[in-house]
Amino acid sequence: MVGIIEALAVQIPDGPAFREYAGATAVTPYLDDSEQKLHRKICGSLEDAIKRSGLKDGMTISFHHAFREGDKIVLQVVDTLAKMGFSNLTLASSSLLNCHDPLIAHIKSGVITRIFTSGLRGELAEAISSGLMAHPVQIHSHGGRAHLIQTGELKIDVAFLGVACADEFGNANGAHGKLNCGSLGYAKVDAEFARYVVVMTEEIVEFPNCPASLSQVHVDAVVKVKQVGDPELISVGAARITRNPRDLLIARYAADVIEHSGYFKDGFSLQTGSGGASTATTRCLEAKMQESGIKASFALGGITGEIVDLHKKGLVKVLVDVQSFDADAAESLRTSPTHVEISASEYANPTSKAAYVDHVDVVVLSALEIDLEFNVNVLTGGDGVMRGASGGHCDVAAGANLTIVVAPLVRSRIPTIIQKVTTLVTPGECIDVLVTDQGIAVNPARADVAQRLKDAGLPVYTIQQLYEKGIALTGIPEPLEFSDKIVGIVRFRDGTVIDVVRKIAC
Amino acid sequence: MVGIIEALAVQIPDGPAFREYAGATAVTPYLDDSEQKLHRKICGSLEDAIKRSGLKDGMTISFHHAFREGDKIVLQVVDTLAKMGFSNLTLASSSLLNCHDPLIAHIKSGVITRIFTSGLRGELAEAISSGLMAHPVQIHSHGGRAHLIQTGELKIDVAFLGVACADEFGNANGAHGKLNCGSLGYAKVDAEFARYVVVMTEEIVEFPNCPASLSQVHVDAVVKVKQVGDPELISVGAARITRNPRDLLIARYAADVIEHSGYFKDGFSLQTGSGGASTATTRCLEAKMQESGIKASFALGGITGEIVDLHKKGLVKVLVDVQSFDADAAESLRTSPTHVEISASEYANPTSKAAYVDHVDVVVLSALEIDLEFNVNVLTGGDGVMRGASGGHCDVAAGANLTIVVAPLVRSRIPTIIQKVTTLVTPGECIDVLVTDQGIAVNPARADVAQRLKDAGLPVYTIQQLYEKGIALTGIPEPLEFSDKIVGIVRFRDGTVIDVVRKIAC
Repeated sequence: MVGIIEALAVQIPDGPAFREYAGATAVTPYLDDSEQKLHRKICGSLEDAIKRSGLKDGMTISFHHAFREGDKIVLQVVDTLAKMGFSNLTLASSSLLNCHDPLIAHIKSGVITRIFTSGLRGELAEAISSGLMAHPVQIHSHGGRAHLIQTGELKIDVAFLGVACADEFGNANGAHGKLNCGSLGYAKVDAEFARYVVVMTEEIVEFPNCPASLSQVHVDAVVKVKQVGDPELISVGAARITRNPRDLLIARYAADVIEHSGYFKDGFSLQTGSGGASTATTRCLEAKMQESGIKASFALGGITGEIVDLHKKGLVKVLVDVQSFDADAAESLRTSPTHVEISASEYANPTSKAAYVDHVDVVVLSALEIDLEFNVNVLTGGDGVMRGASGGHCDVAAGANLTIVVAPLVRSRIPTIIQKVTTLVTPGECIDVLVTDQGIAVNPARADVAQRLKDAGLPVYTIQQLYEKGIALTGIPEPLEFSDKIVGIVRFRDGTVIDVVRKIAC
Repeated sequence: MVGIIEALAVQIPDGPAFREYAGATAVTPYLDDSEQKLHRKICGSLEDAIKRSGLKDGMTISFHHAFREGDKIVLQVVDTLAKMGFSNLTLASSSLLNCHDPLIAHIKSGVITRIFTSGLRGELAEAISSGLMAHPVQIHSHGGRAHLIQTGELKIDVAFLGVACADEFGNANGAHGKLNCGSLGYAKVDAEFARYVVVMTEEIVEFPNCPASLSQVHVDAVVKVKQVGDPELISVGAARITRNPRDLLIARYAADVIEHSGYFKDGFSLQTGSGGASTATTRCLEAKMQESGIKASFALGGITGEIVDLHKKGLVKVLVDVQSFDADAAESLRTSPTHVEISASEYANPTSKAAYVDHVDVVVLSALEIDLEFNVNVLTGGDGVMRGASGGHCDVAAGANLTIVVAPLVRSRIPTIIQKVTTLVTPGECIDVLVTDQGIAVNPARADVAQRLKDAGLPVYTIQQLYEKGIALTGIPEPLEFSDKIVGIVRFRDGTVIDVVRKIAC
């Protein structure tokens, strides 16, 4: 061996700096130990995994929200970090829900000082809206989060990823365990980009675990814990079947809009969300598909049991799943070879080489407020307090050929259509049609769609007319008084700042 | 909107440089065009894709070798690049085979000036061994290639990846088309890391194509071409069933070695290669598994029809497939949910967070030469000319608990066991047992294994004794005369230089 490196340097003076062979296991010392080579990633406890991760004060930790209201990971980890004495951490979760209210104490004590999330609810949202944090919370979309992570603006030091089952190398999934959350679409991005990845599971299974939604090449540590999440709580809240007659009326209108929009053709694609009206739209659409013989090429989302039902009936060929909204969706992901799991980057990242949202024909989305320019707010309530989520709203609205927003004209005496949204999340240029229980408004930029809906005899108004219908019932809402202090920064999917949320003046 | 960025700068003086929202499609202008948003990646011709790729003289192009001797991509691309006037390119293919002999003309004309590959055969190998190239060819292992790409030493500018089928966004696989190569394990690494990725296919299928072995987020361009590869030629050469009685004798010994090695337990894992003796070993092992009731947890590789057969019989639970060696393997990948496709990084990259080779109990490998220190040469022939491949040899040898090398004691009057290998590819410290038709030798470092084999009555000799048996038949080979000129650099899996190949002195 003597002289080879030198001989190379002579023959290739402009070559790379070759290094000489230094032993078969020089970079893989664990291969010398039959125990280490197989079990080196298994940690005895969460504390052990945290110590191994090299986490330090001021760093960024990340989580996914596939278990939604059933999540048991975020608090388990942050409680442990608090006990271990960590402070000044940035918490980056793909979303936060009501179950995360106890984070308030950890913010007060300085364990968590910055937050990135697509949404906020409950007491946590109220506290942050009231100025709990010195640093504003950063609200991103699902695609926007993948963008921030990919570009390195959101640099994850340690990702803590709850999964249904994992093997000792960290090959993990959310659909083949005993307690399943379904797709690990958000976690996939964290696993790929985080410096250190801890997989947390109730079930360590035989190697090799397949499918590997998260791959061993991205996982550093595997910890068995008592609780990862409660799947029964995934569908609490957002993802419920409605019998509300107003929602059903909206759903019928929305299905009519789809039918006559010009996009209801064999092979069309769709995304319908998890709200009551949205879910009901899926059911209304089924009848139209059965009657017409029209089948969808794929459904994207946020997959619900309603969409799974269409898939089983052969009405939707492929399900493309970044998040499973209920047990039916998780079970379908486990069993159907044409129900595929995608990452949030594949779903909606505007700076990936292609996002599924680019290929969607029709999407049905919700809104807390919509204004005369069709701008949508899905984040703050009529009181200016955060209580929603950006989610995939602006992502799929930007991509889809036909973006339909469904909302009741009036909610609890508060009008949905207002002069200017309290918080801008999705710009009006991305919204094509608003469907309310009192009629339909079409964005003036889509005269083609408006004409088709009118020709079909649907109750089409200008948005100004619907606005006036609304405030005739509620009166014009009192303007909100805000202080200067910014409590939330709303990022558009490309990372730009589209709006901020300010603290309500007391 | 005016003032938001300024207000943020005031409130968070140490914050990031926020940018203001600039329109919904500012970073995704293709979304404004209904044609562009769906078909922007489709190129009219290979020339078109090359122009779009921004390829320039001096850059690196890459390929995979899943179609082996049936590959129609490498020459199609390099011929086109030559016509377009490119020169001084680095060609990085996961391997090169006899079908790539016509590259010689492109090397002579200066289109290709550097090569990275795991192997070389035929006239191309002879020409390079004779000093055709100013720069030595760089020989890497399959895991080592993933390592070089991941670390950026091998920086791929444009990857040209032949696939069985793809959709218009570039979601592609090798097992669900009309002409299938099976696993795209090598291509996965290129797709992930190359700056620009061109997918070449005979079949553009309906969106979304699933499974997406290569994902739309990694693909820039899709080109429909007349020929990608001929699957019938995949199993030519290396992957053949043997009726050679000497190979069958070696196979019986090898299966006996496995049975008595101490690693033949329920749940064991294995990799057996594609050579005649190796394939025959798989068949011999089947009988032992059936008799004993022992089943394997997984088989890794290089999957052959023989291994698929064990999988179908329930003797191997999971097939983990970086490369499908024949049509049976490709068909099994298409149909069996427990036949999984992995990347070369997952297979064998020593600097990924875990490689499948780390988890292998028993591997059966071949050798052109093995020396008294158990060092193995799988690259150069007895005449010092390159005619083989590093492949996954050193990767799985380093990872497995029991590495068995199978080889005839003498081939065409040339002894396999020699004093010192002509070219060192896999170091002896990774080799546990040598099985020949004339007896078995165990690495002195594995006295435990040697004792078990002796106890089982197997014909165990020292390697010196087997060496002497060999040269008693052939005589001591004449030493080769080499010039100073280095024609090949052999990299170990971790990127270090383990040996060089020098030009034979005329």
